[in-house]
Amino acid sequence: MTKDSSNAMWGGRFAAGPDAIMEAINASIGYDQRLAAQDIQGSRAHAAMLAQTGIITSNDAEAIREGLLTVLSEIEGGTFQFSTALEDIHMNVEARLKEVIGEPAGRLHTARSRNDQVATDFKLWVRDQMDAAMQGIEALIRALLSQAEAGADWVMPGFTHLQTAQPVTWGHHMMAYVEMLGRDLSRFRDARARMNECPLGSAALAGTSFPIDRHMTAEALGFDRPTANSLDAVADRDFALEFLSCASITAMHLSRFAEELVIWSSAQFRFVTLSDRFSTGSSIMPQKKNPDAAELIRAKIGRIFGANTALLMVMKGLPLAYSKDMQEDKEQVFDAADNLMLALAAMEGMVKDMNANQGPLEAAAASGFSTATDLADWLVRALNMPFRDAHHVTGALVALAESKGCDLPDLSLEDMQGVNAQINADVFGVLGVQNSVSSRMSYGGTAPDQVRAQVARWKETLG
Amino acid sequence: MTKDSSNAMWGGRFAAGPDAIMEAINASIGYDQRLAAQDIQGSRAHAAMLAQTGIITSNDAEAIREGLLTVLSEIEGGTFQFSTALEDIHMNVEARLKEVIGEPAGRLHTARSRNDQVATDFKLWVRDQMDAAMQGIEALIRALLSQAEAGADWVMPGFTHLQTAQPVTWGHHMMAYVEMLGRDLSRFRDARARMNECPLGSAALAGTSFPIDRHMTAEALGFDRPTANSLDAVADRDFALEFLSCASITAMHLSRFAEELVIWSSAQFRFVTLSDRFSTGSSIMPQKKNPDAAELIRAKIGRIFGANTALLMVMKGLPLAYSKDMQEDKEQVFDAADNLMLALAAMEGMVKDMNANQGPLEAAAASGFSTATDLADWLVRALNMPFRDAHHVTGALVALAESKGCDLPDLSLEDMQGVNAQINADVFGVLGVQNSVSSRMSYGGTAPDQVRAQVARWKETLG
Amino acid sequence: MTKDSSNAMWGGRFAAGPDAIMEAINASIGYDQRLAAQDIQGSRAHAAMLAQTGIITSNDAEAIREGLLTVLSEIEGGTFQFSTALEDIHMNVEARLKEVIGEPAGRLHTARSRNDQVATDFKLWVRDQMDAAMQGIEALIRALLSQAEAGADWVMPGFTHLQTAQPVTWGHHMMAYVEMLGRDLSRFRDARARMNECPLGSAALAGTSFPIDRHMTAEALGFDRPTANSLDAVADRDFALEFLSCASITAMHLSRFAEELVIWSSAQFRFVTLSDRFSTGSSIMPQKKNPDAAELIRAKIGRIFGANTALLMVMKGLPLAYSKDMQEDKEQVFDAADNLMLALAAMEGMVKDMNANQGPLEAAAASGFSTATDLADWLVRALNMPFRDAHHVTGALVALAESKGCDLPDLSLEDMQGVNAQINADVFGVLGVQNSVSSRMSYGGTAPDQVRAQVARWKETLG
Amino acid sequence: MTKDSSNAMWGGRFAAGPDAIMEAINASIGYDQRLAAQDIQGSRAHAAMLAQTGIITSNDAEAIREGLLTVLSEIEGGTFQFSTALEDIHMNVEARLKEVIGEPAGRLHTARSRNDQVATDFKLWVRDQMDAAMQGIEALIRALLSQAEAGADWVMPGFTHLQTAQPVTWGHHMMAYVEMLGRDLSRFRDARARMNECPLGSAALAGTSFPIDRHMTAEALGFDRPTANSLDAVADRDFALEFLSCASITAMHLSRFAEELVIWSSAQFRFVTLSDRFSTGSSIMPQKKNPDAAELIRAKIGRIFGANTALLMVMKGLPLAYSKDMQEDKEQVFDAADNLMLALAAMEGMVKDMNANQGPLEAAAASGFSTATDLADWLVRALNMPFRDAHHVTGALVALAESKGCDLPDLSLEDMQGVNAQINADVFGVLGVQNSVSSRMSYGGTAPDQVRAQVARWKETLG
Repeated sequence: MTKDSSNAMWGGRFAAGPDAIMEAINASIGYDQRLAAQDIQGSRAHAAMLAQTGIITSNDAEAIREGLLTVLSEIEGGTFQFSTALEDIHMNVEARLKEVIGEPAGRLHTARSRNDQVATDFKLWVRDQMDAAMQGIEALIRALLSQAEAGADWVMPGFTHLQTAQPVTWGHHMMAYVEMLGRDLSRFRDARARMNECPLGSAALAGTSFPIDRHMTAEALGFDRPTANSLDAVADRDFALEFLSCASITAMHLSRFAEELVIWSSAQFRFVTLSDRFSTGSSIMPQKKNPDAAELIRAKIGRIFGANTALLMVMKGLPLAYSKDMQEDKEQVFDAADNLMLALAAMEGMVKDMNANQGPLEAAAASGFSTATDLADWLVRALNMPFRDAHHVTGALVALAESKGCDLPDLSLEDMQGVNAQINADVFGVLGVQNSVSSRMSYGGTAPDQVRAQVARWKETLG
Repeated sequence: MTKDSSNAMWGGRFAAGPDAIMEAINASIGYDQRLAAQDIQGSRAHAAMLAQTGIITSNDAEAIREGLLTVLSEIEGGTFQFSTALEDIHMNVEARLKEVIGEPAGRLHTARSRNDQVATDFKLWVRDQMDAAMQGIEALIRALLSQAEAGADWVMPGFTHLQTAQPVTWGHHMMAYVEMLGRDLSRFRDARARMNECPLGSAALAGTSFPIDRHMTAEALGFDRPTANSLDAVADRDFALEFLSCASITAMHLSRFAEELVIWSSAQFRFVTLSDRFSTGSSIMPQKKNPDAAELIRAKIGRIFGANTALLMVMKGLPLAYSKDMQEDKEQVFDAADNLMLALAAMEGMVKDMNANQGPLEAAAASGFSTATDLADWLVRALNMPFRDAHHVTGALVALAESKGCDLPDLSLEDMQGVNAQINADVFGVLGVQNSVSSRMSYGGTAPDQVRAQVARWKETLG
Repeated sequence: MTKDSSNAMWGGRFAAGPDAIMEAINASIGYDQRLAAQDIQGSRAHAAMLAQTGIITSNDAEAIREGLLTVLSEIEGGTFQFSTALEDIHMNVEARLKEVIGEPAGRLHTARSRNDQVATDFKLWVRDQMDAAMQGIEALIRALLSQAEAGADWVMPGFTHLQTAQPVTWGHHMMAYVEMLGRDLSRFRDARARMNECPLGSAALAGTSFPIDRHMTAEALGFDRPTANSLDAVADRDFALEFLSCASITAMHLSRFAEELVIWSSAQFRFVTLSDRFSTGSSIMPQKKNPDAAELIRAKIGRIFGANTALLMVMKGLPLAYSKDMQEDKEQVFDAADNLMLALAAMEGMVKDMNANQGPLEAAAASGFSTATDLADWLVRALNMPFRDAHHVTGALVALAESKGCDLPDLSLEDMQGVNAQINADVFGVLGVQNSVSSRMSYGGTAPDQVRAQVARWKETLG
Repeated sequence: MTKDSSNAMWGGRFAAGPDAIMEAINASIGYDQRLAAQDIQGSRAHAAMLAQTGIITSNDAEAIREGLLTVLSEIEGGTFQFSTALEDIHMNVEARLKEVIGEPAGRLHTARSRNDQVATDFKLWVRDQMDAAMQGIEALIRALLSQAEAGADWVMPGFTHLQTAQPVTWGHHMMAYVEMLGRDLSRFRDARARMNECPLGSAALAGTSFPIDRHMTAEALGFDRPTANSLDAVADRDFALEFLSCASITAMHLSRFAEELVIWSSAQFRFVTLSDRFSTGSSIMPQKKNPDAAELIRAKIGRIFGANTALLMVMKGLPLAYSKDMQEDKEQVFDAADNLMLALAAMEGMVKDMNANQGPLEAAAASGFSTATDLADWLVRALNMPFRDAHHVTGALVALAESKGCDLPDLSLEDMQGVNAQINADVFGVLGVQNSVSSRMSYGGTAPDQVRAQVARWKETLG
């Protein structure tokens, strides 16, 4: 591709004429070499099956399987010469195999086509990425659980509209992301199970007349079963789209947390201090810590969902079976996977290193009449007021406190009884932020004991 | 919203000043009235629980529950007066409830907030849509199974790049879509299971100090369990995004089939005849049948994925917990769901009604040397040639036939032996399209028996 | 469409069978009635031209033109009965015209087709929206200019990474958005000029053999010229996509400002106070002001760009000329236009009403060693240090101040000379935030005089 | 970045710990080295201005400017060692400059920051791409004009819904794309003019106190003027988004033409023969020609609009001024630009090489009663029937012909008069496809003379 040519103008780029243009638009070896290991793994399983079913001899199969290992070691060792003229990874590997082992190489492609081969390779690659995503998410969950456990009773403001609404605990806030990421994890798990069917043996599109054993290759490659329709097997890419969808939703969750970290790191909030390792400084303002990693994580949703958009648009309206359009699937998934893994790793690192600033958190939680709801609930519970009435009484008390320039706990009993005569001294038991959070013992509520119970549940789940 | 105002210019639209603008941008009753049944269902479950746990009296609960049924019947009967000043469906219902039953209405909102209420309502609605999508997909699968069964041995061309590659069967082609839709079905099933946790009782964001029983309301509303974190419960919309992702992938599959139907209906292909009920004619050219329904289905992927894009963009980078941005979730999901159901129903109707034109299908399948691969496979199998060599011999034979203006079965044995002396008369057994498709007996292959086996498996699965 | 049917399940929705489904997916009258005025405007121009060129009689044309006015008044008066069986606005109008004037109505469609008719109607509508967008942007620019003029010398922090970087002025910050919106304005202006060609007379796709005068209708409808290719005229919708692209970029700018307003309204920032008219309160916390309008504006980019995505995906890969897929163009543009106008109006209202809190703004600007860059520049200018050296000296001075718990202006001259002996008392002239902003007199810089010059330039430009 | 690491699992990728992760997510040198020439161009202009205004000495400026040329030649010659530790192209160049010329290198960054530097570099790069896009579009237009000129009177079917509607000419169809591409061209031209303002001198975000001359650097770099607001200049990327929007619309047009070429190349259509240079064959079916280039062009809209989606999502809701999120702008634009240029070049090549198959085109045009509209128009014109009546008579005649198994010109005059007695022999003059296209002389119609007039107009316009 023209990626490396800096600044060449359009005319210059393609001066070599149609052949250069066609090679540039057609060849995929520049990126599909990332599938080398999968391609060789698939071919080795295919050769073993061809021998087992008597389609080729055991000697030929052995030669092929050994030769492929040689090719793999050349690729991994960086000594393999990729050829653009050979277009893609499949032809590059097969051509080299022929150089290494000679004639038997020509028997490897029996009962196979590039169409089922590339579908198999790509599925193996995407499956690995699903595993990697699950591993990365789980690692991030563990980091969040540590934060949640440490700060199960640290008080902080719970916001709606970025306005203080009610006090919550640091642990509770961390656990909100654990829940989101837990769903992301299960989404990848479901997607992996759904796509784990082996296309190999579908041949070009119609299956084959050779007496192959598709269950054998499926098992050898770790698939649950072979695909049940050869046209579908070579023509669909919904597994890649589902990977991108799952990745997009995960990236959405990461972007929200990243946004919070950026805001919380501001001089105005000072809720957290990020480690130097995930911030950058300014040579001129050494005290300045820019939350670069958080900003970059916040941005990753763009390219991940961009890839989702790209591939869905490519697939829209394509007739069956294989069309060359589908060659555009790989770069999108490669880039999205790379950036998802990077974002997960960076977020895990940041979470592990970050310090919650308990002082500012608690101060912010206690301001803004954040226990007004507790007061209203007390009026309902203790005085049996209808909820809507309790709401109005609370509003009057908040207005009174505001006019006096104090907070709710600073009002005297007389002040309160001036608004509603039934109020008694018990009310002061619900007005502090610690009492507030401790009282919210409903299942999934912010009370420290609830938070600890959820941490324990997650630890057991993850094992 | 301003949807109904035709052609008003910007100045005119908002001439009434800031209040009109704020109402226009802020009120949701114009669309969230679609949640009325879910809202009342949730409130009835909540009231029963409040009584069961002693938070309100049984009498109050009964009054509330009965009153809500009255409100529901007014809404369903079309006599309910929706008020924009009351902003949303929740306030509209509660206000009317107060008119109907008086004071106890004020106790309904105890231990609840609009935040967990709307999350519950919306989840109930989305869950219904997931069920509807599964129902629609299953109906379409059944229609495709009928086509596949009828045409398990009708021959047609299998295309790559819209060029004839190999013969396949009509049934096989239909079953490719059954596989795709089968994965779509399981995707919705997984999504439904994942989202089936009840937010009710999460209150504004922190849970509540009332001794509520969240498991009871969860069960009453058909949820598997309550959500485990109150912040997450009111702040996330990943269930809606997952619905949109699943819908987008399904729409992608539909768009591909729709594209095929448009192409197959052209005068040049004539592979299918669509019924008049899903086509439109021209008053001037009565023989013309425009595949309007197919084209509209092909287009639906646009608005469904547009909704996915819209909501993901809205959620990007939002700090916890509730922000007003999230009010934009509903219209997107409503529109995508409506259009998905419509596309599924229209496609089911078209598939049921359409006629495959067996003559043109078989004629197209037999042209273009479509059995060249069969010939090559025969050379490998019968003469033990390496696959790559067999490929070259086949190429030479095709070139020979092309130069003679005939097809492969029309070559004489002498002609063939002139290219490779080992070829014998058995070769003619593999050159016809019927033999070709019958021979592809590999699992998932296009052979009629394979197709029938897959039809049978699906019928058993669906029950 | 099924928009109005609340909660009907899939099965129920289409119980009436194929005809109901086809009507639901095919009819457009539910939304394209918004084109009524444009449709009638176009038909009146067409009729006048048909008479002028002698294709129909003057009497017929006059009857048609008068009859159309009658129909329009019925539509505007709300007495018109729209019929779904008549599918779209064009057929509804024509059928009613026939009822009103009889036989001459049948001559209106001479030398025309629905294809060029709908393209004309839709272009007229989109052109109006471009005008409305320009009007809305200009109004918002004027509101920003007022803010900029009032606060040309109010100091506030200039952020990078949401960390204080350097002091800027309120006016300068407002003017940044004026520049962005100015480009948005010119983008719509260019788009309008580009699309202002009249499709009428392109007929179905090939033009017509009637001796029509396309320049006459183009002029009558305010177009600059007729389109130059009839296939293109009925088959492309790039004008709608360009509208959506321009709207998306504008919405992006609005989302950024909205995000700032949300952050600035937080208790932690307190940079601005939004008016009650664009906020909502809490019945329980009367002091709380949720920036609802800002959040909703921030979200609008989602649906506007969602519409862009939807239409681009619809148009992808469509063969010429008209396909029914293109019927999906209107709802997307209608919704995006409505929401863009609403967002612009709401933002204008908020900007007009909002109060900048000068105290907190200036205090924030003065903290965080925000004049470190001024110090470094002074070292370069006054002491002729290379820039990179000056940077290092400044870093040492900031570190010293930080260790002393003071800010830069609070260091003594001795302290400074301990870091670099050449520093003299002149340095104190650059360390205050007022001096800092006043000194940045480069063109486009933040100095109040620069800001005022830009305000003046814009006022002159807008007239 | 991790792009090159094949198959490394998540754990392995970042085993080196936080530093490796931060470097991976933070460094941009892996891709922004493509800005090297622009970076050096900008720095040379900046140095010249610093000397001219007396901020640095002429000697220093001369050393800097010469040193930068040395660095550029190293980069272009491939001998430059890029360092990831130095993060980006700007620091890489400056560090090398210091090695080459020593102390004066430290003065280059006076009155500048990386923020205005990268905005300038990127704008210069994007501007070049706009020029390249215009060049590529113009070349493609010229290729289409050649096709249109050669085939101004070749008849082919004009389709709606992929059903034959009316005959058109090959030249007319080609000219439809010329019109679309002509608008694409003007869209890029407008975008280029809008973005052609120079950010240099905006410094970090506030401007500078050095007496710089921004008009001088603007002019030296080919900009029309300096940007008018320093915050805006470093914080916006709408010029990149506009590039992506224009590219997306262009790609949409290309995808439509590509789709047509794929369909037209099918055995069923045979409307065109693509050259071998832009097709690929099959080793086994030498007669097969897969339209690979067309399919790949059809797919490019995916990644180009994916990039648009990605960047818009990144920019959504970012507070001013620079945030690190914006570093994600470059790779998206690089990739989209590369692929747009490639698609334009490939399409130009294909159009130059392709052969229209006149026989099949004309045969298809003459089938399907494609002149029914001509007949109806004749009834209106010659017999003065109202248009709607003429439509019905035509329908009856088409039905008659269909029942007789002939086409319209094959009906006898008696047959016709049986349907409508007024019909006379003149009618046969309008029933042939050649007469049909020739008669459509309305401006922009398909008549060969109209096509030739448009070709001539475009040739004159392009010069």
